[in-house]
Amino acid sequence: MPDTALDRILADFLAGDRRAASRLISVVEAGGPEAEAVLHRLYPRLGDAPRLGITGPPGVGKSTLVDALVRHHRRQERRVGVVAVDPTSPFTGGAVLGDRVRMGDLTLDPGVFIRSMATRGSLGGLARTTKEVVDVLEAFGQQVLMIETVGVGQTEMDVAQVADTVVVALSPESGDAIQAMKAGLMEAADILVVNKADRPGADQMVRNLRADLAMRPQSDWTVPVLTTVASRDEKLDALAAAVDAHREQQQATGALAGRRQARAAAEITAILRDRLWQHGHAHVGERIGDWAARVSAGTETPYTAARSLLATILEETR
Amino acid sequence: MPDTALDRILADFLAGDRRAASRLISVVEAGGPEAEAVLHRLYPRLGDAPRLGITGPPGVGKSTLVDALVRHHRRQERRVGVVAVDPTSPFTGGAVLGDRVRMGDLTLDPGVFIRSMATRGSLGGLARTTKEVVDVLEAFGQQVLMIETVGVGQTEMDVAQVADTVVVALSPESGDAIQAMKAGLMEAADILVVNKADRPGADQMVRNLRADLAMRPQSDWTVPVLTTVASRDEKLDALAAAVDAHREQQQATGALAGRRQARAAAEITAILRDRLWQHGHAHVGERIGDWAARVSAGTETPYTAARSLLATILEETR
Repeated sequence: MPDTALDRILADFLAGDRRAASRLISVVEAGGPEAEAVLHRLYPRLGDAPRLGITGPPGVGKSTLVDALVRHHRRQERRVGVVAVDPTSPFTGGAVLGDRVRMGDLTLDPGVFIRSMATRGSLGGLARTTKEVVDVLEAFGQQVLMIETVGVGQTEMDVAQVADTVVVALSPESGDAIQAMKAGLMEAADILVVNKADRPGADQMVRNLRADLAMRPQSDWTVPVLTTVASRDEKLDALAAAVDAHREQQQATGALAGRRQARAAAEITAILRDRLWQHGHAHVGERIGDWAARVSAGTETPYTAARSLLATILEETR
Repeated sequence: MPDTALDRILADFLAGDRRAASRLISVVEAGGPEAEAVLHRLYPRLGDAPRLGITGPPGVGKSTLVDALVRHHRRQERRVGVVAVDPTSPFTGGAVLGDRVRMGDLTLDPGVFIRSMATRGSLGGLARTTKEVVDVLEAFGQQVLMIETVGVGQTEMDVAQVADTVVVALSPESGDAIQAMKAGLMEAADILVVNKADRPGADQMVRNLRADLAMRPQSDWTVPVLTTVASRDEKLDALAAAVDAHREQQQATGALAGRRQARAAAEITAILRDRLWQHGHAHVGERIGDWAARVSAGTETPYTAARSLLATILEETR
């Protein structure tokens, strides 16, 4: 894309054009120098809009919960951005779009911007890309940002890396809490929500979760255990209030600043690692094949190969 | 660990001591300079023992299938190594060990070496570590290597990265094939197996899979669709024969050499990236925090920070 084309999209974006926002998000998702140019232009526009992560096992009603929270903020005329990350869908927007059908009326609301990210194949860089897409949404003027992600076994994106406040959603179905625990989600929770709380077992689950939390070491923040029935918009205000309370507490203790600084450090590190590798690859990329052949033939090991290639890079940098 | 301690373990390992093998695997899993030293010593002992990957959705009977294949090879007095990777278990050996209880008699067989790897938290490096653990098992003298891994949504380890032949196992349960397709497993399959073939729907599933395969572009290798009842040791010989046939075909066409060379290139690249970052981190690691503070404060962007830090690294390398 020529610079002038990018300039035009950026101008449209700053004027509030949604299609321009979609295109810039695609540019950022694709990575590379254009992504860098876009983000560089947008960073000065970032403020401290709250970033809320919502995660939990499949089937607990995360999307419904997100929809209900979006409606809650819309009633207060806040512009909302949602990034829905579905690490299990191999099709662009696949399962997520399915969920999003329910959100029909919200997608027509000009104060709401929803972006689905299907992530197959983009291992490792997911947290960074997600953060950058959220950055674009904030630069677009969205005042509340939500990141929805399925918390399965080994979630490759730690939602805590991109959110100021992490809500872990469960439902009274047997096994949800265990699944969340196995996935390490409970550790990341700033707020626990038992959704579908009109189903049997909800009260017992709340008691179990509280007992579980009581056994943890004390910290500045006491993780609340709330109940919601998101499909009927029940008790969403209490959840929103808990999110606000967490944010205020984080601001008061300086934890929010610390979390954001750690996030910046992680992003700098990720970019720097990439850049350093680009530098290295430019010097020795074409020679890796030869070394691989020697390793395959058993005359070298991957370690002697890497050491020699590293020496070449450092030598040629001199 | 002092060098002499490592030397002693290596000597025990080469003498066939299983506890020494377990310890070396742990050293390799931990990574770092000791892992490098161990692997460097073991690489000359690597030959071209077949590496078989077995993957599929949870519940299709992968472990039973692996057990049956191990028994098949043991009847022919081949030494077998198994690495069972469970990316969903947060507990060391958790779910995997549960499965392995069934393998009781095999774990007592001195010709079989089974290692479970629970992988929570070791994102990204999993394929490399798995490959290196398999290397240790081959260096220990295991003549057939198997890598068992759950193929869920976004499997962080692409089993094709570590195996010469990939068997994708399914069962006639509804949804298995779809799950495998969503996870992109079908693409990786060199051989498809419908296990639990005594259950209803197996024949229909085989027909569907064959029809699906027929629509793919032709290649040198025609993916066979087999049936097994691993729990009763049924039709395992046909599966083992298909694995051998795939290997022979791969050798004849040179595809095996290509696959192994690509694997070596990926390993060299991974090590080189790490080393390059170690070099960079040694120069600027302590300054990242300051830059992160400036990014948080909005006076810099992660990209200006990374660019400046890269310049420092290259400058100081000179």
